[in-house]
Amino acid sequence: MSKSVKAALIQHENRGDVRSNLAFIAEQVAAAAAQGAQLILLQELHNGPYFCQTEDPARFDLAEAIPGQSTDYLGALAKRHSVVIVASLFERRAAGLYHNTAVVLERDGSLCGRYRKMHIPDDPGYYEKFYFTPGDLGFTPIDTSLGRLGVLVCWDQWYPEAARLMALAGAQMLLYPTAIGWDMSDEAAERSRQREAWLTVQRGHAIANGIPVLSCNRVGFEPAPDATDDSGIRFWGNSFACGPQGEWIAQAGEVSQTLIVDIDLARSEDVRRMWPFLRDRRIDAYSDLPRRYLD
Amino acid sequence: MSKSVKAALIQHENRGDVRSNLAFIAEQVAAAAAQGAQLILLQELHNGPYFCQTEDPARFDLAEAIPGQSTDYLGALAKRHSVVIVASLFERRAAGLYHNTAVVLERDGSLCGRYRKMHIPDDPGYYEKFYFTPGDLGFTPIDTSLGRLGVLVCWDQWYPEAARLMALAGAQMLLYPTAIGWDMSDEAAERSRQREAWLTVQRGHAIANGIPVLSCNRVGFEPAPDATDDSGIRFWGNSFACGPQGEWIAQAGEVSQTLIVDIDLARSEDVRRMWPFLRDRRIDAYSDLPRRYLD
Repeated sequence: MSKSVKAALIQHENRGDVRSNLAFIAEQVAAAAAQGAQLILLQELHNGPYFCQTEDPARFDLAEAIPGQSTDYLGALAKRHSVVIVASLFERRAAGLYHNTAVVLERDGSLCGRYRKMHIPDDPGYYEKFYFTPGDLGFTPIDTSLGRLGVLVCWDQWYPEAARLMALAGAQMLLYPTAIGWDMSDEAAERSRQREAWLTVQRGHAIANGIPVLSCNRVGFEPAPDATDDSGIRFWGNSFACGPQGEWIAQAGEVSQTLIVDIDLARSEDVRRMWPFLRDRRIDAYSDLPRRYLD
Repeated sequence: MSKSVKAALIQHENRGDVRSNLAFIAEQVAAAAAQGAQLILLQELHNGPYFCQTEDPARFDLAEAIPGQSTDYLGALAKRHSVVIVASLFERRAAGLYHNTAVVLERDGSLCGRYRKMHIPDDPGYYEKFYFTPGDLGFTPIDTSLGRLGVLVCWDQWYPEAARLMALAGAQMLLYPTAIGWDMSDEAAERSRQREAWLTVQRGHAIANGIPVLSCNRVGFEPAPDATDDSGIRFWGNSFACGPQGEWIAQAGEVSQTLIVDIDLARSEDVRRMWPFLRDRRIDAYSDLPRRYLD
């Protein structure tokens, strides 16, 4: 297990089709690897537009098998640069059965694990319940040559349960490919609150569990496909990494940007000795957590 | 149920003995009520020094029955000013059985509920496991004329489980009497990280559950009783209130200070409609949360 990991978070605007997005990612991975990056985190559904702005059965054509063309491509990229890649794909599992799936490619090019997004949102502009069957692989971290990775996806980031279960299963860091942005009809103060909430809740997971969090978000404006006006989503970027006390390591802005960060995995040991939250969990009193509501 | 609540967080230095602390609190409650405060939140163990800096059996003399003298005093105060008071006492339940207990006094002076601190810390300077038996009342909110209060205490604030269980049981806000400070042998950067982590994780609970959080922390330096040097704890104050998106409502500094804040309970309904996290919890996949570790 590495004690320190140099990671690259590749935050970008949608470049168009799969070919152009993967080509852009390949360039960025090469550049990051040249700077010593060992771990690459991509944004959610990086191969194309965020297609969930409308419910359109034709969009299922974007889905692909795993393993498949994208994992072949990303595996070759991982091997070429000897990096671990955490990617995010639209998985076609069977006719009528699709998932929002993160995959991990090892340095030798192999597909070493996948995580199917467990918490699926559905609100105006993010019609994900139409496209994605909720994950059935649980909250299982993925072992890699760089450590045990707690890979989660987007909406999961609002759930302390997801972060905790990953930590209890030994995850050494949490990684979120994500795609979140603003409805520009919201006023500036509301947009600011949303972004701040998004940053804060994820830093809270780092703190509560004493492990680093890396979150890679999409950026740029994507118009709603069926809009007659200028409606759409402005993805807010702001990809970031924080340490096990939630302390900032780095934060991106609102442009395409590859963030290169050093993650000190040994710090978790020190922080958890000082703040041994796992020691004092009242597991005798948590039996209602798997209930919907206590009424 | 009120839609808006004016609350006062009374953050102060230890004034000496029980009499002087309660007298100070009475003054502050009167002043806050004169400004329209309806809900009073006191800091953890406000009746005296933070006595857990050493393990000293004589300190159990500080404990008191509930109901008892302090709840009588605080109940009368609540009735006089027609306010709800959330207080924090060292409860003597039986010989050798003590708790760190929050109590809620209704506007009519009655004791309407108690919460016994569930998560008990123990680290240098905070030897609480010696003094406090872990709570046995679970995470049960307390109904008051101002709404259903999710009262938790200090170390609980690091546990998303506690916040979630209160929210699932219908708590409309979370309230933390707390006593946290710095070991001054820590460097400034570490002290800053600790305070920021403390603020962030609690704001995270607000966000994850879509309810406001109020946290009232002790302030000022308290020397270690048995120290031959200048060691002790500098309680960092910074009591605060935030709304259901974690947005700041107000934050105190590092001095004795009563913070008066307006809490809009109706905002939770709006925020939860936009971010319906309770809807999408994967309760089918949370069964491992009541386990110690998944090894």
